[in-house]
Formats: sequence, structure tokens, C-alpha cells
Amino acid sequence: MKVVTLKAPGGLDNLVVEKREAPGEPGPDEIRVRLHASSLNFHDYGVAIGAIPTADGRIPMADGAGVVEAVGDGVTDFSVGDAVVSTFFPTWLEGPARVGDFSTTPGDGVDGYALESVVRPATWFTHQPKGYSHEESATLTTAGLTAWRALVADGGLKAGDTVLVLGTGGVSIFALQFARMMGARVIATSSSEEKLERLKAMGAEHVIHYRQEPEWGRKVKEITAGVGVDHVVEVGGPGTLPQSIEAVRIGGHISLIGVLTGRQGDIPTAKLMAKQARLQGLIVGSRRQQMEMIQAIEACGMKPLIDSSFALEDIAAAFRHQESGKHFGKICLNW
Amino acid sequence: MKVVTLKAPGGLDNLVVEKREAPGEPGPDEIRVRLHASSLNFHDYGVAIGAIPTADGRIPMADGAGVVEAVGDGVTDFSVGDAVVSTFFPTWLEGPARVGDFSTTPGDGVDGYALESVVRPATWFTHQPKGYSHEESATLTTAGLTAWRALVADGGLKAGDTVLVLGTGGVSIFALQFARMMGARVIATSSSEEKLERLKAMGAEHVIHYRQEPEWGRKVKEITAGVGVDHVVEVGGPGTLPQSIEAVRIGGHISLIGVLTGRQGDIPTAKLMAKQARLQGLIVGSRRQQMEMIQAIEACGMKPLIDSSFALEDIAAAFRHQESGKHFGKICLNW
Amino acid sequence: MKVVTLKAPGGLDNLVVEKREAPGEPGPDEIRVRLHASSLNFHDYGVAIGAIPTADGRIPMADGAGVVEAVGDGVTDFSVGDAVVSTFFPTWLEGPARVGDFSTTPGDGVDGYALESVVRPATWFTHQPKGYSHEESATLTTAGLTAWRALVADGGLKAGDTVLVLGTGGVSIFALQFARMMGARVIATSSSEEKLERLKAMGAEHVIHYRQEPEWGRKVKEITAGVGVDHVVEVGGPGTLPQSIEAVRIGGHISLIGVLTGRQGDIPTAKLMAKQARLQGLIVGSRRQQMEMIQAIEACGMKPLIDSSFALEDIAAAFRHQESGKHFGKICLNW
Amino acid sequence: MKVVTLKAPGGLDNLVVEKREAPGEPGPDEIRVRLHASSLNFHDYGVAIGAIPTADGRIPMADGAGVVEAVGDGVTDFSVGDAVVSTFFPTWLEGPARVGDFSTTPGDGVDGYALESVVRPATWFTHQPKGYSHEESATLTTAGLTAWRALVADGGLKAGDTVLVLGTGGVSIFALQFARMMGARVIATSSSEEKLERLKAMGAEHVIHYRQEPEWGRKVKEITAGVGVDHVVEVGGPGTLPQSIEAVRIGGHISLIGVLTGRQGDIPTAKLMAKQARLQGLIVGSRRQQMEMIQAIEACGMKPLIDSSFALEDIAAAFRHQESGKHFGKICLNW
Repeated sequence: MKVVTLKAPGGLDNLVVEKREAPGEPGPDEIRVRLHASSLNFHDYGVAIGAIPTADGRIPMADGAGVVEAVGDGVTDFSVGDAVVSTFFPTWLEGPARVGDFSTTPGDGVDGYALESVVRPATWFTHQPKGYSHEESATLTTAGLTAWRALVADGGLKAGDTVLVLGTGGVSIFALQFARMMGARVIATSSSEEKLERLKAMGAEHVIHYRQEPEWGRKVKEITAGVGVDHVVEVGGPGTLPQSIEAVRIGGHISLIGVLTGRQGDIPTAKLMAKQARLQGLIVGSRRQQMEMIQAIEACGMKPLIDSSFALEDIAAAFRHQESGKHFGKICLNW
Repeated sequence: MKVVTLKAPGGLDNLVVEKREAPGEPGPDEIRVRLHASSLNFHDYGVAIGAIPTADGRIPMADGAGVVEAVGDGVTDFSVGDAVVSTFFPTWLEGPARVGDFSTTPGDGVDGYALESVVRPATWFTHQPKGYSHEESATLTTAGLTAWRALVADGGLKAGDTVLVLGTGGVSIFALQFARMMGARVIATSSSEEKLERLKAMGAEHVIHYRQEPEWGRKVKEITAGVGVDHVVEVGGPGTLPQSIEAVRIGGHISLIGVLTGRQGDIPTAKLMAKQARLQGLIVGSRRQQMEMIQAIEACGMKPLIDSSFALEDIAAAFRHQESGKHFGKICLNW
Repeated sequence: MKVVTLKAPGGLDNLVVEKREAPGEPGPDEIRVRLHASSLNFHDYGVAIGAIPTADGRIPMADGAGVVEAVGDGVTDFSVGDAVVSTFFPTWLEGPARVGDFSTTPGDGVDGYALESVVRPATWFTHQPKGYSHEESATLTTAGLTAWRALVADGGLKAGDTVLVLGTGGVSIFALQFARMMGARVIATSSSEEKLERLKAMGAEHVIHYRQEPEWGRKVKEITAGVGVDHVVEVGGPGTLPQSIEAVRIGGHISLIGVLTGRQGDIPTAKLMAKQARLQGLIVGSRRQQMEMIQAIEACGMKPLIDSSFALEDIAAAFRHQESGKHFGKICLNW
Repeated sequence: MKVVTLKAPGGLDNLVVEKREAPGEPGPDEIRVRLHASSLNFHDYGVAIGAIPTADGRIPMADGAGVVEAVGDGVTDFSVGDAVVSTFFPTWLEGPARVGDFSTTPGDGVDGYALESVVRPATWFTHQPKGYSHEESATLTTAGLTAWRALVADGGLKAGDTVLVLGTGGVSIFALQFARMMGARVIATSSSEEKLERLKAMGAEHVIHYRQEPEWGRKVKEITAGVGVDHVVEVGGPGTLPQSIEAVRIGGHISLIGVLTGRQGDIPTAKLMAKQARLQGLIVGSRRQQMEMIQAIEACGMKPLIDSSFALEDIAAAFRHQESGKHFGKICLNW
């Protein structure tokens, strides 16, 4: 079978496709999954370019979707033929956050899903949403669940809330979609007029060109009659957080997700205090939250926005497309 | 001005329309409201027929909607001309439940809104949803807020949850609508084929004819693959609660609202315990919750379902229509 | 090794002590535990007398404490020599309630701990509190965790809250102790003057003789200046629940635990509704909650109240003592 | 009567004592309070030195305790002779945070309590804890409630949790005491050996000399077996927050209170994210939370730690003592 591995010391040119023998039969609590799709996230990109150090020969990609080919004797949740999708933290099944690193995350601390077939514990997967393709399902593991957890599990989102999303990456687009499907209002930012139009078409009530409005936090307050938003899905990190703090309402909620602009920086802590706001760090979520998200997706018939698809062999090209920042929604791999 | 009062000892024939002088100017924290609409609830009916004892000459109706005619000096939330709607517990502004009776409820412990003009503290009202008529707004005070609080404030409703609603009264229809607008699935019951069709048309995924299926709790479990529902909006009381306990999932939530079938009765407490379910008593909600519901209504463009409208003078006829049980949605008064 | 089994059709005379071969080596995720103590609960009693039907030859007792004798290769949480205590729902590790029956509970759906040695998955146990004896630890599995979950996990107990506990069974005494160690006030009931004195000595601020005060719900309201209590640990069931509903404050919390007075009965649902109170069904709790309880016990140096101890061979005598209702605190088995 | 005012442009020398006429009778919803004590907080200090700009002639001090001398006709909560204590946000009665500035705070946006008698709305005060002196009560308004809200209302503190407190200011000492009275463990820091000893004597299980251990965040992790603490009461601001983020456990909670080390600074946001921790900004709390804190104080018999007391006329000397940083617990004013 085909396997993508990342040769040391990292970099997109070091992603190579090899041949390996397919895995054998699953153990009692395991399943064998014939994988067909993955999707790209900023974390996968960090691994791929070597910014996040991993073991030599690591198989990349946290997201994996495919079909169950064989099940162990003790497995009750899955049958042969079931369409399944991987989880980001395979050992975090439910309850509060228990993991603070990527040592158990496929494509980082352990081998990921850029290959044709794996044998893994059954609990490393959930069912796909009914009616989803493999590549649609693959978008859920990282980006989908991050947005769901931020707004729903952490944020207790309700109809009538106002949500601010930043840019047009995978998490932000999912956040926009989940907010809309639960009756919330959305304000979105971008630096492209064309993308702003697309955000509106997807249901954003207000859009802000953040280059034309570098003080976009204040702009958000204007739009909300001086109140600020209930939730910010903060994917930028220290470069955008000061504006997000400006934008949030008193007692509001900022989901701290991103490292796009760096790992540390100058933050107006006194303003966060005075806003009595909650800055909630998070990385993706639990398997239980993934199952709840999938129930919601099925109930609402929501579909992820896929920017483009690449063959498994073209994984480096896919990452280069991600690097360009031109995408709107998710970049997928299919095989 | 015209005023409806309830002459002792109660009964629909004792609802009489009188003439009174209009109220004068509001005090510093008060507003004067020209009322135009109300809506009927089971509680109002109890007062009207004398089942709930009140003072002689009580002006009935908890729900009131109209236009601000004058504002006191200290009022900042409202201006002359604003469209407003009353609150059920005028002194419960926010925070956890603080009231356990109807001594402050308009139309019961104090005079209600079946009249042309009142002067009241400004905090007894909120703004109407934008785009709502007075009669649409009047449906929110009791029935709308009860459903909103049950599912959203108490229940933490999220997309993908499953909600069971009983019958086609005001609270149940609102619950169906709120559930749908937040991406939840709905199972609804009725004893009329025609009403079941209408429930489906409003978005109920499954409907149950509760006379044909007297063990409808078990039926709900079948529909949900043996799991049961996340939320039951239990408006029936002791006559339906045993089936509701059967219908709810392990760890689920039953909103105990109703006294339609009585004030006490035989309840399978051991099953409630084994289900590890929560039976949450509630009466309507706080002013803050009403404001949040209205934000949600505005964000979603949701409209209440109005069964029929009567003139203020025809209030007794309106209650007789309610008594007949033929309505589907809210019965309103307009003047 | 010695094993107690329950011969069909149940009844205390059918508890017999047999000899069996000790179990062998644990599998990769298992541990072998040399058991030394158990404790008696109402549930165990129901099994023992045959009121709760189980398989012929079932080994009774949900509570088990002992020492790890051998660990499988994959076990990281325990080492040989560790003192451990069993969990009531071995497969409910954390998160919301997932179980609604006793099919996985040791001593009911599966064999329990009235024997000298078992091999079980490591996750069926937690560490004992430091400084606890085996019999002290054994009291935690069922009674301790039920009280902890009711007040802390479900109830969000805080200092200054008022808690009502009923009688002097294991759960009620634990609830009194947990409430006191978190700064809450306690009102306790009993039908024995001597027990009332002991309850006071343990920190109950007020005690009520429930035979002399059959309307003890009203008495509780008097004691609390008409307000009612924040939490009721309702172990009685339908026979006591009406008084508990009377006793709880508006917006308060009743933990529905007990079946002592029956499995169903006449309940004043309208009063529960008007109180806007929460009646929360529960059965024990999760492994995670047990670990949190043990952390609390260690931080506070709290010790369970043990009424009396019996040898394993005298298990029938121990249950007869429980049946007499004369105990105050936990009845234990030691071997 | 005597009144302290702050003459422009601020500075401790500008605190002057004047004579004024005592206020007259209270309006219908007001009470007149004869004040007897206040206590000093960092916020009051900021006003006093002019770092926080206020109106010319502002009467300083947010904390005020005294005796009700007269009550308006509409007041039901208080009687003449009642001992009362002020609230920090007079208009924030309950529910989520609604205020993001000090425009309504006595001693900042409005006149405070450094005077002999005031007439104010009754809701600006609560009852004092039974058995408290006026100066003990005065410590609760700002420092006491900040600590209570951080740990209990925001943090859901439970027995067995571990709390990190920084230094020996009023909030930190209250946090230590509340944590201990609810069965939590405390780790405390100071730069004085003598103070570390006193912290231990008050119940801190571990203490850290933060000058000798500049990497005290790592030290906290060592003490907690690599886990980190559940709650950090972060009163330092940007200068200490990086160590607090190091010290908190995965999924833990940091109460962001302080501006002692500045209003903004370099923060490791990626680490906060990876910790999946919650950084919760807060300023004091609501009147309802103050009432709950007082219930807890009464149930536990807890007393605040008073460092020293000054006469009202010596208010400048009191602030100079605060400025010196030598205090341990609260500095009070008495008159």
C-alpha cells in the first residue's frame, strides 16, 4: 500500500510516498480502516515543514476518513463496511480536557493517516455523518471539532448570540456555519473583497476588511451598538488578540485557538480583566464532542466547505496551496 | 378607557368590560403603555374560571403588548413610541429563580393587561422583537418564555439534541419552533391526525398519536433507537409524566411545567432515579431570559403561531375556544 | 480461596461460603487484587434477599478494597502493593451519566467482591485515600460516591449552603460529612433521640425527630426562616419526597437517590414546579468522580463513620444487622 | 460631619478632611447609614494617588460599613440599627457581569464611604455577617468578594482542589482562607521568610519564596507531581501571568484580577492554549455573590485578617503603609 512519510529534517520536499505492506488483522479491540481521505490543518502544516519537530519517518495527517475493513472480536461500535472518521486525541474519550500536548495525536506524536490502511483501536474513530463523503468527513477531525467545541461545548452558544470569526481558514468557516445553524449572528473578517462577499453569502451578517479597518475591534463594537460580541473564535494568536479583546462584550468569551501570528506577544491584560471576559485556551476536543457534533451535522444537513482536493501523491502541492493563503474553507486529500 | 375585570367568584361569565379613567403621568421610573394585545394561557384560564383564586375585581391577563406613551424622568431603556411587551414576573429581573408563587404576576397577584392603558415600572416590560405585531409580541410573555427557558436557559439545548413536545398548546409549539431554529430534532404528540400533519409541516421529524399509542414513552424510545430523548417539555403533569420518564434518555432532562392533568399523582420515582434524569420544575422565567429570547427571535426571524384572534370584549369567547382544546398555537386578544 | 456466592432463589440463608481456586495472572490491561474488605449498601441487600434478581451463584458486594498483587504489562496507573478500591460502574469512567441499570455493577450484573482475590481491568479500581484502612476505603465505592456526587458533582455545593439529610444510613452520614467539610450547614432527621444527638455531635446544626414532626418539611422551612434548604439528599423515595419538596427552597436541588419507601408513589408535581426546583435522579457516579472525592478526602483528612465490622463468613449476620435499621454509618466486612 | 475628599490633581497629600452637613432623610427606596469603617484596596490607592483619574473633590473608598440610621418607606430588607456593608458595583445586583468600568463604583465614578453618614439606595448595601465588627465587614466589599467570586462563583471550587495564591495582599489572603474553609489545598508565594511562615500557619500546605524561585511556576508543578494547580488567583498581572500559566494544570482556571505589575505585557498565548486553560478576567462581583459569601462566612465562622487600623483622619498614613508593601492582610480605617 501507499504511505506518505516525512523524512527528517522536515520540509515539504521531504514528504515522500513509499510502498509498504498492508497491516494484518485487528486485535480484539481494534479495527482495520481502508482510508480514502484526509484534510489539511495548520497543525499538519507545522509538522510538514518541520516547525513542529516529530520523529523521523513520521506518517503525517491527523484527519483520516475511510471504511472499516475488519473488526476485532471485542468491538461493538463498528461493523465491516462502516464509514468512519478519525479523532484528534485518540485517548481523550470524554470529560474535561486531559491532554496538553500532541504526543498522542496522529500525524504528530504518533503516525497519522496519509496512507491506505491502518489498524487502530476502535475508539480512535467515530462514525461519519450520514450522507458525507470521505473527504467531507475528514474535515471534521481537527477543524470541525475545534469550531464546535469553541462555540458549543465551551461557549454554550445559543440562538441570538453574536459570534466574531477571523479570516477564512477551516476553523473560522466551520464556526460561521455552526453559529448560523444554531441561530446565532456572525461578523466575519477578511482582507479580500471577494472573500468578504463569500462570507456574506454563507450567512455572515456583517463583514470587515481588516486591512482597511486595522482597528477592527472597535468596528465590531460599532456594529453591535457598543456592546461587543458574545464569542470570538480567535484563531490568530497574539497578533489579533488585542483587537479581539476590544471586540468582545463585557462578560464575553474568547476561544484562544490560534498561533498563526506567533506563540507569544503583548496582550492588554488589564482590558481583558475590565471586560470580565473569559479567554479559553483549547485544542480540538474529545471523542464525545465529535459524536455530538456529528449528531448536530446530521440533524441540520450541514456540509463543510471544501476549497480544493488533491491526490495523496500531491500532498506537497496541497500544503503549498495552504501556504499561499488563497484557500477559502478546507483543502483535502483524496485516494 | 375599557377595562376587563373578573367579578367574584370567578367564571367566564364574570369577565365584564367596564369604563375607567385612563391613568395619569408615570413616576420617575415608570412608563405609561397603551396596550393593544394579549394572549391566553392555561394560567390565565385558571384565574378566569376561578380555579386560581384572586382578588375581587382583578384585571386578568399576564400577557400585554403595546406602545409607550409616556416615560418617567429616570427611565433610560424606553422612549415614547417604543413597542413593548410585559414580563410574567415583574420583579424577577435576572439570576436564578427567586419566585415560587404568582403574587407578583399580572393577572393573578396584581392587576393584568386586559385594559387600554397602564402605568407601570419600566422594568415590567421589554422591547418587542423588531417586526412583530402587538399580538405576536403578547404571545411571548408566558408561553414563549416558558419554552425558551425550558430548552435553552435550563436545558442548554444544542444542535443535534432531540426534543419531545406534548400536544399543540402554546408552550409546546414554541418549544418545537425554538428547537428547530437551534438545529435540534423534534418528536411531537397529538391525538388528532390533522394536528399531527401540521406538526410535521412545522418541522417535527416524528409524530405520535398518543391515543393510538398510549405507551408513547416506549414509542419515543423506539424512534430514538432505544436511547430516548435529550429533553422533554412536560406540560401535562402527573398524567403524562410516567410516559415522559420512559421517553427520556439516561442523564436526560424533563422540564416540569404543566398541571393540565392535575397537581399530584403516581410517579415512578425509581425509574427517574435509574434514568439518572433531571426533572426541573419551572414557571416562565426572568426578564433577562425574555430579552435573550427576543434577541434569538430577531436573529432567526421566527414568528409565533397564532391560532385565532378575538376582540377584547370577546374575552370570554376566547377562553371558551381555549377550553375546547381545538386550538393549535396561541389564542390572542386584540384592541 | 474463600468466595461468597448467592444461591438461587436469594435470601440471606442462601449466602454461602465456598472454596475456589485463586485466579491466575492478569491480562495486559488487568490487575489482580487481594481483597480485604467490603461494605454493605441497600443495593447489596436487595440482591442478597433476592428482591433484585441476579444470576444463580452470583458473588455479591459492589464495594471491594484490597491490595494489588500483580499488574498486566499495559497497566500504568497501579503497581504491586498499591492499596485500591473498586468502582460501582466499572465502565463509566467519566463524563455525564451513561448507565441506567446494574448490568455492569459488581455484585449485581457481574460478580462482586465478596471473595479473596480477583483479576479485573485496572480501570475497575482507583487508589485508596492515603491513610485509609481497607474497610474505610470500601465504604467509598457506593455510599461515599453517591453522597459526593449528589452534593458536589450534581449540586455544586459551596460554603454557606444548607443541606438536608434524611436518617442515618451510609449515604446520609457521608453527605453530612462532605457538607461540613466544605463549609455548608446541615439539618438532619432521625426517629431516635440518641441518633439525633450523634448527628449533632457530627456537626448537624439542627436535627428533627421525624416521628414527632411528621410535617418535617414545614419544620425545615421554619428553621431556615421560611426559605427552605439548598439541597436535599433524598434517600427515602416516594414516602419522603413530598416532605422533601416542602423543605427545599425555590430554585433548590433534590438528589433523588432512594427507594427505601418504594419505587413509585403519589408526588405533588405542581409544588415541585412552583418551587422551580430540580429533582435529580442519580445512581452513584463515575470513576473520575471517585478520584475527585478521594482527593477531597485526602485534603481534609475526613474519615467515614463505621458502625460495625463483620468477618466475611458472617455476611448474613451483617445483612441482618443492616435489616434491623439500628446502624449509624457503615456496616463493613473484613477478611 | 467629617468627610474625606481628594483634591485635584490627586496624590496622598491631597486627601483632606472637611466638615459638611449630615445628609437628611432617605427617599422611599433609600437608607441612611452612619459609617464607621472602611478598608484599603489597590483600586482605592490608584484613585488616591491620582493614577486613576476621578472628579475633583471625590470622596474616596469603595468599602464602607456602618449602621442603618433611617429607612425609606419602600425599604423591606433593612431596619434601623442593622449593621450593613457596601457593595462595589451598586447597580449590579445579580446575574452575569454587566459592568466593565468603575463609573458606578463608590470612591471612583461616584462618591465613596470615607465620611460619617450617607443616604443611598438600600440595594447599595447588604447585611454584615453576624458577629463581625464594622472594620471586619468593610474588608469584604472589594477584597473579600473578589476572592470569593474568583474561586467559588467563577471557579466552582470544591474540596480537594489545589489553589495557588500570590503574595499576601487582601485578595490573596481571603482566597487562602476561602480555599481552606471549603477543603481545598493552598500553595502560596511571598518574598519574605516571615510571611511564608505566616502563610503556613494560616493553612498553606506549600509556600514558595518567589525571589529564590523565580521559576515558581515550574516549582508549583513539581509540588503537584507535575500536574499543576486547579486555580490560580492571579493578582499580579502581566509580570506574573507567564509563571501562573506554567503553574496551572491542563484544563485549569486562572482568575485574572491584578494590575500590580502593569496593564499589558508579553504573554505566552500558545502555552495558555496548549494548557487548554481558562483565563477569566474579573472585577469584584455582584450583590448576590456578596450575600452568598456572607452566608458562607457565617456558616464557617471565618474572620478576615486585619493587618492594621487607622483613624479616618490618618487616611494618608494608611495608604503610605499600603504603599510600603509591608502589610499582611487588610489595612482598615475606623471612625
